[in-house]
Amino acid sequence: MSAPAGAPPTAELEAQMAELTVRVHELKTSKQPFQAEQKQLGELKRAMNVAVGGGGKKEAAGKARLTLKTPKGTKDHGPSATLMRKQIFSTLESIFLKHGACTIDTPVFELRDILAGKYGEDSKLIYDLQDQGGELCSLRYDLTVPFARFLAMNQSTYPSIKRYHIGKVYRRDQPAMSKGRMREFYQCVRVFPVVSRDRTDFDIAGNFDTMVPDSEILCILVEALTALDIGEFTVKLNHRKILDGIFELAGVPADKIRSISSAVDKLDKSPWEEVRREMTVDKGLDGTIADRIGEYVKFKGPGKELLATLQADEKLMAVPSANQGLKEMAILFDYLEIFGVLGYMSFDMSLARGLDYYTGIIYEAVHASSAPPGIATQPAVGSDAAATAAAVVVPAGEVKKSKKKPADEGADADEEVDESQVGVGSIAAGGRYDELVGMFYEASGGKKGGGKIPCVGISVGVERVYSIMLAQRKAREEREGRGKETQVFVVAVGGDGLLKERMALVKQLWDAGIKAEFAYKAKPKLQQQFDTCDRDQTPLTVIIGPKELEQGLVRVRRQVGKEGGAGEGEPVEQDRLIEYLQAQIAQL
Amino acid sequence: MSAPAGAPPTAELEAQMAELTVRVHELKTSKQPFQAEQKQLGELKRAMNVAVGGGGKKEAAGKARLTLKTPKGTKDHGPSATLMRKQIFSTLESIFLKHGACTIDTPVFELRDILAGKYGEDSKLIYDLQDQGGELCSLRYDLTVPFARFLAMNQSTYPSIKRYHIGKVYRRDQPAMSKGRMREFYQCVRVFPVVSRDRTDFDIAGNFDTMVPDSEILCILVEALTALDIGEFTVKLNHRKILDGIFELAGVPADKIRSISSAVDKLDKSPWEEVRREMTVDKGLDGTIADRIGEYVKFKGPGKELLATLQADEKLMAVPSANQGLKEMAILFDYLEIFGVLGYMSFDMSLARGLDYYTGIIYEAVHASSAPPGIATQPAVGSDAAATAAAVVVPAGEVKKSKKKPADEGADADEEVDESQVGVGSIAAGGRYDELVGMFYEASGGKKGGGKIPCVGISVGVERVYSIMLAQRKAREEREGRGKETQVFVVAVGGDGLLKERMALVKQLWDAGIKAEFAYKAKPKLQQQFDTCDRDQTPLTVIIGPKELEQGLVRVRRQVGKEGGAGEGEPVEQDRLIEYLQAQIAQL
Repeated sequence: MSAPAGAPPTAELEAQMAELTVRVHELKTSKQPFQAEQKQLGELKRAMNVAVGGGGKKEAAGKARLTLKTPKGTKDHGPSATLMRKQIFSTLESIFLKHGACTIDTPVFELRDILAGKYGEDSKLIYDLQDQGGELCSLRYDLTVPFARFLAMNQSTYPSIKRYHIGKVYRRDQPAMSKGRMREFYQCVRVFPVVSRDRTDFDIAGNFDTMVPDSEILCILVEALTALDIGEFTVKLNHRKILDGIFELAGVPADKIRSISSAVDKLDKSPWEEVRREMTVDKGLDGTIADRIGEYVKFKGPGKELLATLQADEKLMAVPSANQGLKEMAILFDYLEIFGVLGYMSFDMSLARGLDYYTGIIYEAVHASSAPPGIATQPAVGSDAAATAAAVVVPAGEVKKSKKKPADEGADADEEVDESQVGVGSIAAGGRYDELVGMFYEASGGKKGGGKIPCVGISVGVERVYSIMLAQRKAREEREGRGKETQVFVVAVGGDGLLKERMALVKQLWDAGIKAEFAYKAKPKLQQQFDTCDRDQTPLTVIIGPKELEQGLVRVRRQVGKEGGAGEGEPVEQDRLIEYLQAQIAQL
Repeated sequence: MSAPAGAPPTAELEAQMAELTVRVHELKTSKQPFQAEQKQLGELKRAMNVAVGGGGKKEAAGKARLTLKTPKGTKDHGPSATLMRKQIFSTLESIFLKHGACTIDTPVFELRDILAGKYGEDSKLIYDLQDQGGELCSLRYDLTVPFARFLAMNQSTYPSIKRYHIGKVYRRDQPAMSKGRMREFYQCVRVFPVVSRDRTDFDIAGNFDTMVPDSEILCILVEALTALDIGEFTVKLNHRKILDGIFELAGVPADKIRSISSAVDKLDKSPWEEVRREMTVDKGLDGTIADRIGEYVKFKGPGKELLATLQADEKLMAVPSANQGLKEMAILFDYLEIFGVLGYMSFDMSLARGLDYYTGIIYEAVHASSAPPGIATQPAVGSDAAATAAAVVVPAGEVKKSKKKPADEGADADEEVDESQVGVGSIAAGGRYDELVGMFYEASGGKKGGGKIPCVGISVGVERVYSIMLAQRKAREEREGRGKETQVFVVAVGGDGLLKERMALVKQLWDAGIKAEFAYKAKPKLQQQFDTCDRDQTPLTVIIGPKELEQGLVRVRRQVGKEGGAGEGEPVEQDRLIEYLQAQIAQL
């Protein structure tokens, strides 16, 4: 970590970096190769780090300063944040388990070939491990592809499986260069910020009759979002076959369907005019074809009503794939009605979802707090009739873009929102993918059609849910959540600290299953012990002193600020302390 | 993934690979650089994969076969294994939470500079991410260094913290070449097998009086291993300062202390003669110095007895660091007695622990099933007196090496035991590290001595615990554990499948919090439904049929093979079904 003897002064480095930054930008905008310059820029940046260190001061003896930080695009989660995430996970897990799910665990990296060709344009965001000899590997980009690989490898053991999986995935997201904010900062420091995010996936794979597992997945989605208690939400719902039918009817050439579909997917963020421009100008689609698509994608509303509208459209019904998709939606809506969740759905022709592997229904849950105007949200709990009435068919219009505060060098700048995955305001998404497992099976030499395992799944955006919960907690002006669950703190008053007595007492509490702590000092100051209880919001304090101990007594005090809190505390006989504390804890 | 047109036939590739393999081995053994050859070998291997594919058959149209597998050294965990691991985690978590811990979450990779210089000889096992522009990163090697980095970054927010952290760590372990087994296989396919393992760490950082948190950590260790219910174990215990005192007394030159210490650490696997040979022949230590070390490292036994023996040794007591260490051990044993865990300890002069950052007490828990002869184990629960009496002072002698079955290409070959971390038979380990956080603080420009946060921690070898549990389950001839928790399966008899009726019923169960499933078929076969219940060991079946439904009845059947199982089941009125099931579930 020593700086090279002849390292240029930082001013020169800065000038070189500025020059290169401009050059890379020029190359990028003129669509020329820029990798060599990019790499050079990275080297300069590292040289700069070595020369400058954390604060820009000169270092003694040529020793470089170590920068204490997490890699760009990642962050540490402190105790309170981690506890809140754990609560989100366990709420989701309890719903998943109720529906018969098991969980599997796959490695955080996969062979590079397994991920190849699964993510279309986004493949460039895959994070590679260095070639240190042996196999080439990459960090997983999602949990779906590893799951499909697992199923294809374990055909005989798990012919059908419902699983959930909570884990981190990795993407080298592009910086938001196009927005023109802090461009150089982004170019230098966050060229490829790594977004690490927790995801919770739930998938049902295996044999089934049409729309039965699909309806259960949507039921799970509604139960999960309701259990998370984060307020109102709507589930936007569409079917790939209907979309394909619309494209076919409009006359989109087969080789343009994927790219036109991904343009449609932007309708939740952009007005129709902009999407039309992308279709015609950027992607060379005939204007009249685009307009025919525009006729359909404006439709959204309660499932059965919109279904009736579309089924009355003879031209659309004449397209086999649309006909098939609409039939399946009719069955789905019946089942959703039985499960009592139909009222949460908005049948939405503009929902397309970017990923290549979806083959049937697709859906996205939108939270009320971030839904763009024009998308009605349902009450989280309510009668279906009322909820259905609240959702009206409205054309997709111009919506406000979510405001991002300018990023800076600080820790907050690393907070990334996974817009690419679930769109603005989306908190969960998913769909049916019937071909992915078979694709792996066949690619690995399996009999054609032999390894087909149809799947349907949802993915909950845990970071998004976390942000909403945090905002709600702030709005209620609550204190930051506790990072721990300690119920009792054992405090000594006088008597030279009473360390051994505190240790003996706290061990009794542990053995009784009570979460308890004490100060690690032989002679702790009284005020410091109470300060610790306050800081940690520990609800109960057991106070021991030499005089009370002689009488076989201790005192129990409730948290300051609570009813019956502060003061000297209540005297309790030592041999009924556990019983007394357990009764107090039961009331917390 | 197409094979290059002029790719050599596989026979030629094989010959080249064999030649290179020998060459790399020669270079390695003669300590010459071999990286270039290694890399070339990797390229050949990949060419081989492309040419051969998964099964060695010729591919049509030049399309290479995709190999469906996880990267070498990693594996998938199926539902049953994952559930068992989750149970291990939650047992450990419940103990940690009882002791006032919180949990934090750090990224799976760190800046490369953060990991540099922390692992001595093992640094070569660190797994690097590819340089794709931007910062250089590596996968974390353990959870301790990221925790120290976190503390150094958050001095003001978390001046003292008790935390646990469960997560995977990554090491490019060397293959077992020296054992002469399947050398080429290892060299070609597992040059750097990646060992991914789950770890559970618990650390207490911050201000304290001597040995107070240390004694709680050992109390936690005993409570955790007892709660895991895996049978008898012993905690081997030593102190770095005593070891350093012994080395000083014996006359080990200061610059050899680390390497001699790591030789001593091998005494749990190798006889003294072999360790002495390493000290004198390999590491150039004077024979008489080695023999003086040998006098001490043979000591092990109950804490207070061995302490008395050593404190009676005037020469040793005259060495300040040994004197200090022994004083601290005396305090520790007092506290461990209060916590009632002293009987689990074996004070062991041969325990050295390899890692550079330990500064105080060090310890390692050894499970009875794998303890080498000569190491006495304690009853997991028992009176201190009895347990103490069972441990006797014995010299370290020749012990059997654990037998490894020859590795093969199959999935089992990927099962790796983390011997480097915790030694043969060790299931948990740890120690005090007072300088690591301060090291980060100062390296990043902090005031010298300003950022010191002393820490003491344990790390539980989850994979090891899992293996022991699995072996115990097999010994009891139990069926493979359930991967799910489903309580009720809803079955239709006759009536054209009764799909909608089953859906409506199962939704009632979900809403009541009952874990329930049904077949996703409109007309499922009766036998298939019962087979599913049997396979999943689902304890209860609710059977609906058209006739009973008319009468407002369903039947509830207990799992086949259980008391009251099989048969037609008991008729239950529909409106008291939930109540009835909840009563049944309470008895499971």
